[in-house]
Amino acid sequence: MEDWSFPPKYDSNYLPDPSSKYWFKQRETMPAESRNQRILQRLQEVTRYAYKNAPFYRRKWQEAGFHPDQLKSLEDFEEKVPVITKPDLREAQERSPVFGDYLCVPEKKVHHIHGTSGTTGNPTAFAISHSDWHAIANAHARIMWGMGLRPGDTIFIAAAFSLYWGSWGALIGSERLRAASFPFGAGAHGMTARAVSWLKRFKPTAFYGTPSYALHLAEVAKEQGVNPCDFGFKLLFFSGEPGASIPGVRDKIRQTYDARVIDSGTMGEMAPWMSAAGTAETDGLVLWQDIVYSEVCDPQSFKRVPFGKRGTLVYTHLERCSQPMIRMLSGDLTLWENGPTPCGRTYPHLPNGIFGRIDDSFTIRGENIYPSEIESVLSQMPNYGGEHRIIISREGAMDELFVQVEEGDVVTHAAGNIAVTSFHKQVEAKLQQLLGIRSKVSIVAENSLSRSDHKAQRVIDDREIFQQFDKQLQNGSQQ
Amino acid sequence: MEDWSFPPKYDSNYLPDPSSKYWFKQRETMPAESRNQRILQRLQEVTRYAYKNAPFYRRKWQEAGFHPDQLKSLEDFEEKVPVITKPDLREAQERSPVFGDYLCVPEKKVHHIHGTSGTTGNPTAFAISHSDWHAIANAHARIMWGMGLRPGDTIFIAAAFSLYWGSWGALIGSERLRAASFPFGAGAHGMTARAVSWLKRFKPTAFYGTPSYALHLAEVAKEQGVNPCDFGFKLLFFSGEPGASIPGVRDKIRQTYDARVIDSGTMGEMAPWMSAAGTAETDGLVLWQDIVYSEVCDPQSFKRVPFGKRGTLVYTHLERCSQPMIRMLSGDLTLWENGPTPCGRTYPHLPNGIFGRIDDSFTIRGENIYPSEIESVLSQMPNYGGEHRIIISREGAMDELFVQVEEGDVVTHAAGNIAVTSFHKQVEAKLQQLLGIRSKVSIVAENSLSRSDHKAQRVIDDREIFQQFDKQLQNGSQQ
Repeated sequence: MEDWSFPPKYDSNYLPDPSSKYWFKQRETMPAESRNQRILQRLQEVTRYAYKNAPFYRRKWQEAGFHPDQLKSLEDFEEKVPVITKPDLREAQERSPVFGDYLCVPEKKVHHIHGTSGTTGNPTAFAISHSDWHAIANAHARIMWGMGLRPGDTIFIAAAFSLYWGSWGALIGSERLRAASFPFGAGAHGMTARAVSWLKRFKPTAFYGTPSYALHLAEVAKEQGVNPCDFGFKLLFFSGEPGASIPGVRDKIRQTYDARVIDSGTMGEMAPWMSAAGTAETDGLVLWQDIVYSEVCDPQSFKRVPFGKRGTLVYTHLERCSQPMIRMLSGDLTLWENGPTPCGRTYPHLPNGIFGRIDDSFTIRGENIYPSEIESVLSQMPNYGGEHRIIISREGAMDELFVQVEEGDVVTHAAGNIAVTSFHKQVEAKLQQLLGIRSKVSIVAENSLSRSDHKAQRVIDDREIFQQFDKQLQNGSQQ
Repeated sequence: MEDWSFPPKYDSNYLPDPSSKYWFKQRETMPAESRNQRILQRLQEVTRYAYKNAPFYRRKWQEAGFHPDQLKSLEDFEEKVPVITKPDLREAQERSPVFGDYLCVPEKKVHHIHGTSGTTGNPTAFAISHSDWHAIANAHARIMWGMGLRPGDTIFIAAAFSLYWGSWGALIGSERLRAASFPFGAGAHGMTARAVSWLKRFKPTAFYGTPSYALHLAEVAKEQGVNPCDFGFKLLFFSGEPGASIPGVRDKIRQTYDARVIDSGTMGEMAPWMSAAGTAETDGLVLWQDIVYSEVCDPQSFKRVPFGKRGTLVYTHLERCSQPMIRMLSGDLTLWENGPTPCGRTYPHLPNGIFGRIDDSFTIRGENIYPSEIESVLSQMPNYGGEHRIIISREGAMDELFVQVEEGDVVTHAAGNIAVTSFHKQVEAKLQQLLGIRSKVSIVAENSLSRSDHKAQRVIDDREIFQQFDKQLQNGSQQ
């Protein structure tokens, strides 16, 4: 068997044969049932390790009546082990500063400090040990290998390098697989225009960033008379936003760059966060269960839903010693299918990626609405200008949904009001069909809504009830 | 002898005893004359290597009539080997894209791509091989050890992570010496306020960034009612601007944070760029000659000036294989002294750091003026508000020097015109004494001049002659 233990021990010089689709063929393609037996062993080790080293888990599990000795099956795991949440972590860090009583290594072993990028309240700090850092690099290299990246590729990392984990994960994966890293790090004013000139000249083979930023970069390139296809990317991979698994957004990026588009990402807390990621042959997200054991669960009972059903992702680290997350509730909404995947891996997969949140969805006049579904519909309309805003307001006793949509076809716009009115009607009809309720649509000019360098903020809820609700809800940012 | 060869070969697990002042005691404290013999051997190896692998050097040296076989002494080196300049590198990259014909390893060995951050013209790309990356990490860890950093320290890296090399060098040095890295990466809007809350909570032991940013951070902290001393830094180390060796600026930062202030840095092209750096016991910059051989030279002949004299720095890599720089002209102005230094190292040192440039200095009415000298004088005045601008203009036939100076003492300001007039006169007198010419000073209110997150731009030259001159001059940014 290829290296697979807890704590993980990887040879930092190992590289597969470049012609191999797999980094660890056996671990990736073994029968799921056999893998599950091995995952159970890992879970027994990880829970015993956490019980011994983390007062946080001892307390949480004693309250729930669980002890690691009781763990005999994956069913025991989902039935007996309680989920943990972002507020649990924040409270633990307030109670035992600075890394919380779920830090399982001495503080002097901490190698890197990162954290949530939320601007309100106390952020959560992530402590990564030296050996975890290397294990994360190995895991990401392995998954990026599955995307088709190889030594000799040049990876342009567009996302900012700060507390946010995304860019660091892509970087250390890139370094470990012996690709050339081009850590550009968007963020500062004027950087995107400079990115265009570097890309024209260097023609890296791959891009990493957010879908919003890739589309913004393409617009800036076009303003400079540069066709984004000329950058010559063979693939773009994404995290931070669900766009890359939404067919409309994915197709738009694919056409804009004439390149393969691959989604990835779980949560910053879960680094190695790439454990849900597309591959060279498989769209959506593949669940690399031998790195992070991922369950798609009923949002009330937190037990696994059958394949083919929707639920929320619950993650468990199998290769993390510093701050192992055991049954971390993501709040992300997805639908899972059984393997094997088109790439021949025997992992479960999420054919539509993550398409909403159990908490940022909103209910309006009894209908459950996921903003990403609106984005998907708009993105598939040829006249869509690339941005929109969703505004929920209360007029009298009635909640109203307003959608501002950019109109993108200059020719149509020049053709005058009739064409705009026609687009307006199309949008209203599509949204009514999707949502089951009537929304008030307004068409605005192309580029009149601001773009984001990072995660697009498209939903504005100015109902008083939402403002209260917002305080209770937790910042659930997908990594 | 401790590891010292070309190409460098370092054990990536080596760490000195924490009580040792030195990483490699023998290399750092051996008699300078013996070290120079070893440096000569390295120079022979490096020049032969570059001659063999880089058409750029073969061509340059053939034109100058030099061949590596002629190199028998350090005097041969300064007499026979021509300096190279930033325009040489840019031309080489235009002629042989993308890394220039001074890239001495195959492109597929490139591990990281960085570059100059200039916004005009083609930037210069830096290609770092995998083994160079590790050698740079080792060199920086060694130098940061000399600053007093140890495993268990937490290093807050404030500078942005992008093409700019500074933050990356501090990061990989920090990782290699087994400190905890806290890669914050300033840049995006609102980040500084967030830095204050993280620092309050985490109390890292060290800060890395630019002097301008450290002062800006302190101002933001004070606005939030936080005393920067409460962050508890034991040391702050700097690069990117010369401030940390200017007594006025150094003392201000030291008092603001109640911590040791250490300067460092050569040029982005020269990574490992920390080879000029202060230590725990030595102010100014120590020249770590066994990593980068540094000569302080006459700006015309490019031969070494005697110790105690001013000149410009010329750098030669002794541990770089991907893009070795051999006699790279910095354009930075300094004064060097012979060792040993107060820390017991037998290297030459720059007691006042880098205090100007041979190209950004300007001549006005026959006087040679260095902006950093103006900064130094102002910073030592108790009523100085922390920012200023230098404007050179032509009125009729005569060049005029205008200096806008912030007045910082609220009490003085409240005391009315007499106090302001008195400060005005003091500034004029001090500047006349320093510069030997009269300047027109205007006093402006505190915080009325904009602050920079990165390198402060304080000189505005609107003479037509300067605008032409500016085109000829090269962006000479100190790393």
